[in-house]
Amino acid sequence: MAVYTHIEDDELATLLARYDIGELLSFAGIAEGVENSNYLVRTTTAHYILTLYEKRVDEADLPFFIGLMEHLSAKGLQCPVPIQDKTGTILQTCAGRTAAMVSFLDGTSHRFPNREKCAAVGSALAQFHLKSDDFTIMRHNALGPESWAPLLASITGDIPDLPQDIRQNAASQLTDILATWPHALPRGFIHADLFPNNALFVKDKLTGIIDFYFGCHDILAYDLAVLLNSWCFDADGSFNVTKSSTILSAYQEQRLLSNAEKQALPLLCRGAAMRFFLTRLYDWINTPTDAMVKPLNPMEYYAKLRFHDTAPGPEAYGLWS
Amino acid sequence: MAVYTHIEDDELATLLARYDIGELLSFAGIAEGVENSNYLVRTTTAHYILTLYEKRVDEADLPFFIGLMEHLSAKGLQCPVPIQDKTGTILQTCAGRTAAMVSFLDGTSHRFPNREKCAAVGSALAQFHLKSDDFTIMRHNALGPESWAPLLASITGDIPDLPQDIRQNAASQLTDILATWPHALPRGFIHADLFPNNALFVKDKLTGIIDFYFGCHDILAYDLAVLLNSWCFDADGSFNVTKSSTILSAYQEQRLLSNAEKQALPLLCRGAAMRFFLTRLYDWINTPTDAMVKPLNPMEYYAKLRFHDTAPGPEAYGLWS
Repeated sequence: MAVYTHIEDDELATLLARYDIGELLSFAGIAEGVENSNYLVRTTTAHYILTLYEKRVDEADLPFFIGLMEHLSAKGLQCPVPIQDKTGTILQTCAGRTAAMVSFLDGTSHRFPNREKCAAVGSALAQFHLKSDDFTIMRHNALGPESWAPLLASITGDIPDLPQDIRQNAASQLTDILATWPHALPRGFIHADLFPNNALFVKDKLTGIIDFYFGCHDILAYDLAVLLNSWCFDADGSFNVTKSSTILSAYQEQRLLSNAEKQALPLLCRGAAMRFFLTRLYDWINTPTDAMVKPLNPMEYYAKLRFHDTAPGPEAYGLWS
Repeated sequence: MAVYTHIEDDELATLLARYDIGELLSFAGIAEGVENSNYLVRTTTAHYILTLYEKRVDEADLPFFIGLMEHLSAKGLQCPVPIQDKTGTILQTCAGRTAAMVSFLDGTSHRFPNREKCAAVGSALAQFHLKSDDFTIMRHNALGPESWAPLLASITGDIPDLPQDIRQNAASQLTDILATWPHALPRGFIHADLFPNNALFVKDKLTGIIDFYFGCHDILAYDLAVLLNSWCFDADGSFNVTKSSTILSAYQEQRLLSNAEKQALPLLCRGAAMRFFLTRLYDWINTPTDAMVKPLNPMEYYAKLRFHDTAPGPEAYGLWS
């Protein structure tokens, strides 16, 4: 559930007066996202999402996130369009928070997307990578490989309800992963968090990619590894190679993978699984027991890591060349 | 912030398949209401609100609430319309909760409604009373006058940050109020909670009265007293007689008050202020300090009670006859 800053009707009226987006018809806080407060704004012209940035987002990063959305939407990627006020300004202040209005996208997300949706997201991720090629603001990946060892080291004390050797096993896996990490692969702007809940569909048609708040500059194929990890495991934990093959084919119709990228796929997938395992493990230990948002079990990602560990090569993902 | 039951995409698809309301375009949990979980559902045909009833609502009361909404909307009152599924059924089960879909109403609420809005709500409340006249399901007012003394008696222990003699003063006021309570006044179906946040407007046009979950059968003019208490005090705590006079005139254009109702107005207003003072005092003491929803200060309603206590007669509310 979202952090929720209440906006009074007069504060909203003051904000809306800055825009040329019609008369207000309805307004509701929506329970989406855990980083920010989000509101659905409906006017006589269209629907919009108003986001108030809460303390978990670094304000210095906002020009990057907003700029990347503007850049990609202008080039035709289906994603939210940041809305300028009458003076051309996007970032605003409302209820004591920095705020931005973006276009509202139709569509709903799906926990276990079917093959048609996998094809659509694979194609969209390639377009994300290609269309962001000439974007100019830089953002380092704060959750990239060099952050993983310090993050693991910061996780101390008892780990309730998990195997007690999990930290030691993770440390050993991490040493392996970092020893051969493919730093030389092609880099560019990546979404870095394209989980099924960040892709919207009407029926099987992709209507938008949302939540750019982990976006950064890193290895392009690592973004594919995040996607395969979050889209291709079935509810029973088994890896669905038909889905991964579909994603990779659709991606390559837009952007061909080099041989080095293909060969690195199992390692990139291990790294991506490690990144989500570690942040979940951190949250598992550091989330108060009475918090509204229950932490996700990190073992889901440890099991995925073990799957990738045993993958002989790119063919394990349905990638033959 | 609303209690929030998460609905998975497959649960939603199963529910929507029961209705003939078009294809799903978007779905979002909304942070409105504290009693239930509410979701905004947008389809190719219209917008709807899906409510999942959480444990604070007694399921045995749902046929009353839903029936009253159906009855009043069918007679042209602007309020949500309960949506029947293909078999004519309104109450459903979704995500382990009893659920109902109603039409979505445009409009936003306003903390300090202006005179035009006061006129609109006064007229709408009279229509509520008149159009519900032939409704047939009964519901006792669980928060009516006979509940006030037991409620006060149940509030024991320290009362943090409030005057320590507040319980004693309230008990004395309550004795006064109950001694002369006007039980013989005309009765009917009342909203019982028509605060500004339960009335939606586009500009100054009333688009809907919402939240029927305190609706019951009680003294009609008591509903007006609830309205005057929640709409006619300005931000500085002063009573705005222009607004109350506007509400009462607009109400009487639809339904004339009898002389007995007029004379009872100060007492009814004291009673209504007492009812909200008591439930707020209860929540003030019984809400955990780390709860997401901060309790409202009961002293706001104690001050209102004192205002009504000094009112010489209906003329204090701008009602001359």
